[in-house]
Amino acid sequence: MSDLKLVIGNKNVSSWSLRPWILLKHFGIPFEEIPLKLFTPEYAQVIDKYSPSGKVPVLHDGNLQIWDSLGISEYLAETFSNKDFWPKDKTARAKARSITAEMHSGFSGLRSNLSMNFVGRKTDYQPPIEAQKDIDRIQEIWEECISSYGGPFLFGKDFSIADAFYTPVVSRFITYGVKLSSKSSGYIQTISNLPAYKVWEDGAKLEVS
Amino acid sequence: MSDLKLVIGNKNVSSWSLRPWILLKHFGIPFEEIPLKLFTPEYAQVIDKYSPSGKVPVLHDGNLQIWDSLGISEYLAETFSNKDFWPKDKTARAKARSITAEMHSGFSGLRSNLSMNFVGRKTDYQPPIEAQKDIDRIQEIWEECISSYGGPFLFGKDFSIADAFYTPVVSRFITYGVKLSSKSSGYIQTISNLPAYKVWEDGAKLEVS
Repeated sequence: MSDLKLVIGNKNVSSWSLRPWILLKHFGIPFEEIPLKLFTPEYAQVIDKYSPSGKVPVLHDGNLQIWDSLGISEYLAETFSNKDFWPKDKTARAKARSITAEMHSGFSGLRSNLSMNFVGRKTDYQPPIEAQKDIDRIQEIWEECISSYGGPFLFGKDFSIADAFYTPVVSRFITYGVKLSSKSSGYIQTISNLPAYKVWEDGAKLEVS
Repeated sequence: MSDLKLVIGNKNVSSWSLRPWILLKHFGIPFEEIPLKLFTPEYAQVIDKYSPSGKVPVLHDGNLQIWDSLGISEYLAETFSNKDFWPKDKTARAKARSITAEMHSGFSGLRSNLSMNFVGRKTDYQPPIEAQKDIDRIQEIWEECISSYGGPFLFGKDFSIADAFYTPVVSRFITYGVKLSSKSSGYIQTISNLPAYKVWEDGAKLEVS
């Protein structure tokens, strides 16, 4: 159980790494962090040793390598079944997996225009139309979930994999100063005040200082 | 249990619809099929009624809507827990989820160049480099899985969600006449000979006739 190693990229930019990292951190599961510097010659030399897909994040549990942010999250949910990585209720869990998968494969308008820059702050940024559509859909998801399950997290009082998958979006919305509804702004506050979020932020600040 | 409805797009092109459809069909789970015609004015008018994300596929189980091919697949695995949608062994299941998630979020070089055209047949097609990289990685995945678990499916003798996620790739490789290793060619045969694959193919033929 304590032989977990999570291989991640730069904290300022690696949105995919943030998802399983914040899950492990928030749920208090001990793990060793193996940080790699993306876009360097050293990265190209070592990544194949760590990751079958050639990408971060990848989780090592002893000799077993599990990759992709969603593959890792489902593995953690199974392995630590005493913790509620997914909502307990079956219907809520189906919704949580739906919005998690929607984030996992979609929102390319947001990704390509508002790339994660954790410590960066833009002023007067105007999202292009394909990014604004994604922003609108994400707010719709957040508002529906918070209305249905009572907040402050997407599925009620507990942080879940669904929140971990939308945490990089929280960072993007802050960086680019995206105008949001009051309910969405409240969600941004909830996530960005988490102790684990602050630890990641401190790491990102160290990288770019 | 018998009130499942699966909303899908055109069988000739909707690769995302094929994944949960072939799962349901292969495992013999009764469901009503609701086919929508993508890229038509009618589609734009009705899709929001069926799908919160505005996309196909979406599964309706009574009043519950579950969307995204992976969200649906995990829901089916939970709901029909007497059937092995995922491999039984935990390590194999972790690998299966890793390669499924890798397909779910990646391979954009393949997707954008070799778009699914189920009944189409190209001759002398030369994949551009970004598509060839994806083709090479997919063959690596298939060969490793078949070597490790003995074939003929990716995780041994039974079809799983991982196979369903690579079924649209099988169709793409056939359509574009992609040159493959003998092990990969064998896998193409295994999948394309499945009765459920033939039923989808017949539907695609009807659409374009």
